[in-house]
Amino acid sequence: MNAPSTPTHLLPEVHQRPVPPALIEALRARFGAQLSTAQAVREQHGRDESPFTNVPPPAAVVFAESTADVADTVRLAAQHEVPVIPFGVGSSLEGHLLAVQGGISLDVSRMNRVLAVNGEDLTVTVQPGVTRKQLNEAIKDLGLFFPIDPGADASLGGMAATRASGTNAVRYGTMRENVLALEVVTASGEVIRTGTRAKKSSAGYDLTRLFVGSEGTLGVITELSLRVYPLPEGISAAICSFPTIADAVQTTIETIQLGVPIARCELIDANTVKMVNAHSKLGLREAHLLLMEFHGSPSSVKEQAETVQAIAHENHGQDFEWASTPEERTRLWTARHNAYFAAVQSRPGCRAISTDTCVPISRLADCLLDSVAEADASGIPYFLVGHVGDGNFHFGYLIDPNSAEERAQAEALNHQLVRRALTLGGTCTGEHGVGLHKMDFLVEEAGAGTIEVMRTIKRALDPKNILNPGKIFQL
Amino acid sequence: MNAPSTPTHLLPEVHQRPVPPALIEALRARFGAQLSTAQAVREQHGRDESPFTNVPPPAAVVFAESTADVADTVRLAAQHEVPVIPFGVGSSLEGHLLAVQGGISLDVSRMNRVLAVNGEDLTVTVQPGVTRKQLNEAIKDLGLFFPIDPGADASLGGMAATRASGTNAVRYGTMRENVLALEVVTASGEVIRTGTRAKKSSAGYDLTRLFVGSEGTLGVITELSLRVYPLPEGISAAICSFPTIADAVQTTIETIQLGVPIARCELIDANTVKMVNAHSKLGLREAHLLLMEFHGSPSSVKEQAETVQAIAHENHGQDFEWASTPEERTRLWTARHNAYFAAVQSRPGCRAISTDTCVPISRLADCLLDSVAEADASGIPYFLVGHVGDGNFHFGYLIDPNSAEERAQAEALNHQLVRRALTLGGTCTGEHGVGLHKMDFLVEEAGAGTIEVMRTIKRALDPKNILNPGKIFQL
Repeated sequence: MNAPSTPTHLLPEVHQRPVPPALIEALRARFGAQLSTAQAVREQHGRDESPFTNVPPPAAVVFAESTADVADTVRLAAQHEVPVIPFGVGSSLEGHLLAVQGGISLDVSRMNRVLAVNGEDLTVTVQPGVTRKQLNEAIKDLGLFFPIDPGADASLGGMAATRASGTNAVRYGTMRENVLALEVVTASGEVIRTGTRAKKSSAGYDLTRLFVGSEGTLGVITELSLRVYPLPEGISAAICSFPTIADAVQTTIETIQLGVPIARCELIDANTVKMVNAHSKLGLREAHLLLMEFHGSPSSVKEQAETVQAIAHENHGQDFEWASTPEERTRLWTARHNAYFAAVQSRPGCRAISTDTCVPISRLADCLLDSVAEADASGIPYFLVGHVGDGNFHFGYLIDPNSAEERAQAEALNHQLVRRALTLGGTCTGEHGVGLHKMDFLVEEAGAGTIEVMRTIKRALDPKNILNPGKIFQL
Repeated sequence: MNAPSTPTHLLPEVHQRPVPPALIEALRARFGAQLSTAQAVREQHGRDESPFTNVPPPAAVVFAESTADVADTVRLAAQHEVPVIPFGVGSSLEGHLLAVQGGISLDVSRMNRVLAVNGEDLTVTVQPGVTRKQLNEAIKDLGLFFPIDPGADASLGGMAATRASGTNAVRYGTMRENVLALEVVTASGEVIRTGTRAKKSSAGYDLTRLFVGSEGTLGVITELSLRVYPLPEGISAAICSFPTIADAVQTTIETIQLGVPIARCELIDANTVKMVNAHSKLGLREAHLLLMEFHGSPSSVKEQAETVQAIAHENHGQDFEWASTPEERTRLWTARHNAYFAAVQSRPGCRAISTDTCVPISRLADCLLDSVAEADASGIPYFLVGHVGDGNFHFGYLIDPNSAEERAQAEALNHQLVRRALTLGGTCTGEHGVGLHKMDFLVEEAGAGTIEVMRTIKRALDPKNILNPGKIFQL
């Protein structure tokens, strides 16, 4: 009873490919101090925020400082047929960074320059190691902002690679809509460019969007041109509490169906509010909450807010509280973004298994409420937050990583939820990506024929299977 | 002097691959009266609105009525290694439909059912032969509309294949943003599905957007799920005239940079207004015009209109005229959409060579004004219209198709314009696609390495090169 049982459910298959000493020597000759084989550095690059804990770290870490560094690393790795795993800040939730086939971690965090700000075109060009907060800091004095915010202060390269989104996606879209152009190092070490800074184009295959969301398996992103937005003239945030989750969800559905251009529409269930209060000392009312934000001209913001207040009122919403100053708003959204960490800290030593389903808005209640009932019945502690305006929400099952039973229970809950979402016309992952954790779900969602098309593309563009191998699908 | 010289500039290379009688027999056995080898039918399927006139028609036309029909056609063609060219309504401007390597035309216009309208999710699912006007007719009573309008009443399958856009793209995006999911027949005749009706997803490679814009070269689209929008509560359209094109362009630039969510912002130069008046008896003031439309709540529409009026006023705009009734607006936008036909009719017997550059909004004046000067200096008649809010505009050089000199002049003008757009960070095609006409431009724009990635994908997914071969790039 005391010895931890061996969990099998979350052990990815590990087939370490050899990393010949000749490659390490060649990398050291080329990179000197930019190469590390120190145990601590390797271990830091061999884990992420996923529930996987058993994968050996990469054999070495290259700290790239330029596109040429990336290209040379990939070229040397290709010569030796050794895997290369791009690394930004390590905030993946799905095992994207784990060296399941061994190899080299290619850390691009030093490639962190904002290369161009074209305010008059509402575009910026950045290196992949720039984080979203760093970018926003760099452009705020120009009256601009970049809206995509996947909780963690992730690198923009990593966000493109996982097709990230976050709380503002309901109005501003995801990385799919906001990446205009890329520079990419291919599997042979060649440097190519996709797209331009023009707002639209019909110039051949949309390679930009093929690389966005490819999770490092088709190329290494070394530069991104992104859309940015004028800071809205008027911003207003509000919290509204609801007696039931169903009421909060119904308010969301009606808001979206009415075409209100709401900028953020986030659900936090009462249980998670308690965790957030304990962590952030926020004193939020411990009920089911919708956190909302409205952007636009002052009159448009007022109009949107009035419409949503009326909808919320009809759905038993109470205590509309406004956060109008930047400080109040920052406090609110920091609390939202810290929900994950607050939840994980609520059960010391736990790991979170996150779900990430996304369904058409009309099916949100069907998808969410049954899954809440199942999670409650399981007895496993969990948090529940959602980008509900997009039909996307996350359960985080807080399991004891040493309990095979809890792991199996959490995985079973996740599987039931995914099945439900797929039946309702949805997807297994709205924003986290497939990584290691959702490979089976992807087959269920897309079908074997569609996966085979993905595989065919992967084999053609990376014939030696060196770019982040073992992720998204089995080759 | 009287015999027409042989134009060489616009003759695509034609390498007809043999179409064995056994294939025609097999198709006839499978399709009966759905197969036609009649000369008139073949010729109708062997031309489009492009300036190419010398390509022999396809050997036969299959009128598909189901996905199974498409799959069987592709499978039979694959057995015989014969090209298959998908055909919607034939409105391509770039030679997409021409049988430059021979083969079979696969007409999907009978696959014209609206399969599902999910009004509560703002999505529809349609067959590829449904045209944009047909879709709008089918959903208008539900208070919904589909915004993408590339002039012609194109098929939605064709619009997806060319990544079409049109006048509303400045607010609603292009086919890139508005296709959620596809059913596609691959080169082996297999039926796959990409995407779901969920608003966002990180589930593997973005095959939806790989097929959107692939111009029939990677698969045949047999079903599309699309985003639709609530008809705005308030709509208001306006015409404003300007003493110079520069003033109209500057008004556009400032409107976009200020973040006004304008729904349409179209330029028609004075010369083209004359052609439109002659064709549509519209009595428009014969000056450089901006045609604009504003969508939103009544107060938001009013606010947007006031902002733009003030900007226009500072840039010497005159005579803001409002079109508030649906009839007035329809008349206005019909005139805009008929500009192409009005222009072509202004010079009997001519063919139009259309340009389609798109640049970042801050470079619009730089790109447009120099090209106007060049076109004026050439003496070739032309029309000029533009989705200027997107930085996209079209010159149509109205040439005598039998004059090698005029062709060469028009192509030279086009080339100068493309070079200029690329230098300014733009693209050679905002919405028409590459087809036959822009293959060289695409190499200039994207670079040889990027084209090689496209080629690699094409070879992998269509190893026999049967899907619309000879388009986008040389294999």
